[in-house]
Amino acid sequence: MTHNPVDRLIAGFRGFHALYYEQRPERIRDLVDVGQKPKVLMIACSDSRVDPAIITNSEPGEIFIVRNVANMVPPYAPDGAYHGTSAAIEYAVRDLGVEHIVILGHSRCGGIRALMASAQDETALSGRDFVGQWVSICGHAGNHDHSDDAEKAAIKVSLENLLTFPWVAERVSSGALDLHGWWFQIETGNLWELNRETGAYDKRV
Amino acid sequence: MTHNPVDRLIAGFRGFHALYYEQRPERIRDLVDVGQKPKVLMIACSDSRVDPAIITNSEPGEIFIVRNVANMVPPYAPDGAYHGTSAAIEYAVRDLGVEHIVILGHSRCGGIRALMASAQDETALSGRDFVGQWVSICGHAGNHDHSDDAEKAAIKVSLENLLTFPWVAERVSSGALDLHGWWFQIETGNLWELNRETGAYDKRV
Amino acid sequence: MTHNPVDRLIAGFRGFHALYYEQRPERIRDLVDVGQKPKVLMIACSDSRVDPAIITNSEPGEIFIVRNVANMVPPYAPDGAYHGTSAAIEYAVRDLGVEHIVILGHSRCGGIRALMASAQDETALSGRDFVGQWVSICGHAGNHDHSDDAEKAAIKVSLENLLTFPWVAERVSSGALDLHGWWFQIETGNLWELNRETGAYDKRV
Amino acid sequence: MTHNPVDRLIAGFRGFHALYYEQRPERIRDLVDVGQKPKVLMIACSDSRVDPAIITNSEPGEIFIVRNVANMVPPYAPDGAYHGTSAAIEYAVRDLGVEHIVILGHSRCGGIRALMASAQDETALSGRDFVGQWVSICGHAGNHDHSDDAEKAAIKVSLENLLTFPWVAERVSSGALDLHGWWFQIETGNLWELNRETGAYDKRV
Repeated sequence: MTHNPVDRLIAGFRGFHALYYEQRPERIRDLVDVGQKPKVLMIACSDSRVDPAIITNSEPGEIFIVRNVANMVPPYAPDGAYHGTSAAIEYAVRDLGVEHIVILGHSRCGGIRALMASAQDETALSGRDFVGQWVSICGHAGNHDHSDDAEKAAIKVSLENLLTFPWVAERVSSGALDLHGWWFQIETGNLWELNRETGAYDKRV
Repeated sequence: MTHNPVDRLIAGFRGFHALYYEQRPERIRDLVDVGQKPKVLMIACSDSRVDPAIITNSEPGEIFIVRNVANMVPPYAPDGAYHGTSAAIEYAVRDLGVEHIVILGHSRCGGIRALMASAQDETALSGRDFVGQWVSICGHAGNHDHSDDAEKAAIKVSLENLLTFPWVAERVSSGALDLHGWWFQIETGNLWELNRETGAYDKRV
Repeated sequence: MTHNPVDRLIAGFRGFHALYYEQRPERIRDLVDVGQKPKVLMIACSDSRVDPAIITNSEPGEIFIVRNVANMVPPYAPDGAYHGTSAAIEYAVRDLGVEHIVILGHSRCGGIRALMASAQDETALSGRDFVGQWVSICGHAGNHDHSDDAEKAAIKVSLENLLTFPWVAERVSSGALDLHGWWFQIETGNLWELNRETGAYDKRV
Repeated sequence: MTHNPVDRLIAGFRGFHALYYEQRPERIRDLVDVGQKPKVLMIACSDSRVDPAIITNSEPGEIFIVRNVANMVPPYAPDGAYHGTSAAIEYAVRDLGVEHIVILGHSRCGGIRALMASAQDETALSGRDFVGQWVSICGHAGNHDHSDDAEKAAIKVSLENLLTFPWVAERVSSGALDLHGWWFQIETGNLWELNRETGAYDKRV
């Protein structure tokens, strides 16, 4: 009964197989035969506590998901380097034709704390190879006293960055694509939504 | 009753709130108070059909997750550019101290098909800004006639790339970190695990 | 892919086994080793749409459940006949020491409709061997024009009948046991709770 | 954060409402508009650890469920007394037209232990008003040294009793109705199915 965490995941997969492939194959069949047709791209944090599928009770096929540290979107830069997040956004928007992009931030975010530490002390992340550079995408968002404010500001930067992608901006202009900024307050379990007109976050749940 | 997909996610979040924060707050409390302590980093595809939490029935706090197109790991390159996947690996390994990294590939992967198309015709993805460059990380894996083989080969490339990160290689050497390659066969619901000694994939589920 | 309904249940059980016995045996272990210690007895309808575990998201071990047609409690009658519902109430109260009894009624109840039909026409159920007699437990509750009212009245009769059991009445008097009347409005998904002082049903959800 | 068990059920209901009525109303809509059409009647124990919906992962609408102490079926006796289990069987078979009846027994059953105690000592349950009489339905099944054997024997008695109901026997004869005996081994999580030809229980899961 001494389960290592990987064996647990395998056992969980066995349950998934039984429930989706044996008990209710109709849940999966179309997704295999026809392919995926998600309507939503979600850009979320890698944080283990903020899993988009769990917190939205979504089913296979519903959300195309990018997860990186601090749910950041870098600015458009088609420079021939490896851009994982940008490639996923491109695939979702141009190949799959999603109708919504949600940036899902959250409280107590380690990536944002790293950003804030850097803002106070440039050398704070000097011992790291990638994290400091990555979170600098939302650079000025780190200039807040409270991490809640920095997290909310970073979501706004990512939304602004999204609009630097020409094929995102076009679709937003034409009404084919909507952008959303959500902040999950992990202590209370509330969900706050950015009102893009006022810049304030309104409680949705 | 005409639900748009975002409203559905909000409703799902309302259910999550009721079940995790009202009915069983003990499920979440430690994760908030103590912080996350995941033992596993999973690098998975953004594909909406291959959600790690759903297919492993995992709970909040169990897996730190990166999702990008075709679940790829680029080689170690601390060059000051934005490296989202590498930053997440660094945070998981160096800050959180995960004990396992799982590369989770899958069949019918659109990213791998793009890679294969590029292998046959260099101009296949020339109309894309990021996807072609991104999937070229696993370049030679595209030289297969069948996408299943290409997907399995790409997982191996990502595992090799993981070992180019010095702090990954050290921990693997010392036994503090295990690497795993899994391939989810979406048509059948089977899970295949790479035997890193033989190079073959063995059916686990 | 032609699943008969029993094979589906077996497949579902296989999933349950994987998730509860393989992935998270700690969910079950104490219930096996120590035994059940439910705090709640629920008396619910056999109706397939009104499953107590599903509609309350309960876990194994939480609710001791009786299900019969129209969630009825007959009056105390220790006459040597077979009394299934009374035996279950006795076991829950005297052996397990539950602290709450919930009568869970619901709208669109076929048993209550049978009762109402009998109230209008004594011969309505004459072709049935047991159903007519069984639902007559809540006899006068059938004298309503609307089934909602009949269902709510029947819950009150069952609560009154519960108090005819001496070991229920004693525990209610001493404060060791609480009685609750709930009515699930299946069309809207609302839950209404009987205010036993006013006799009215108040919306809880 | 001091949740009483009833408040937890209410919170769980709130989650059910959000997930079934707000997020995926299509899950429920037909069941309300068209009515229930379950194919399976399950007769299960009231034991809180053996919830049919949980252990078979069933959805609303799939199983019409009777639960009583020790999942017993009394013999056919249309004598004008209150027969809750018989009324539910009648409603399921004659009104709903179920195609399968499953008797679901289980190990560590308190009701069967009471039966065994009575078999050894007639006065064992003399302090109880209903339990002793109720479990005597499967009287001779109590004459076993091991509770596993008594539980399995009791399932057989209930199946025999089912065949004393003329409208059950007719449908079984015509092939319109199948009877099943299952025994859930709670310690191991295995499911055993009665082979009605050999009288043995075969492991299904």
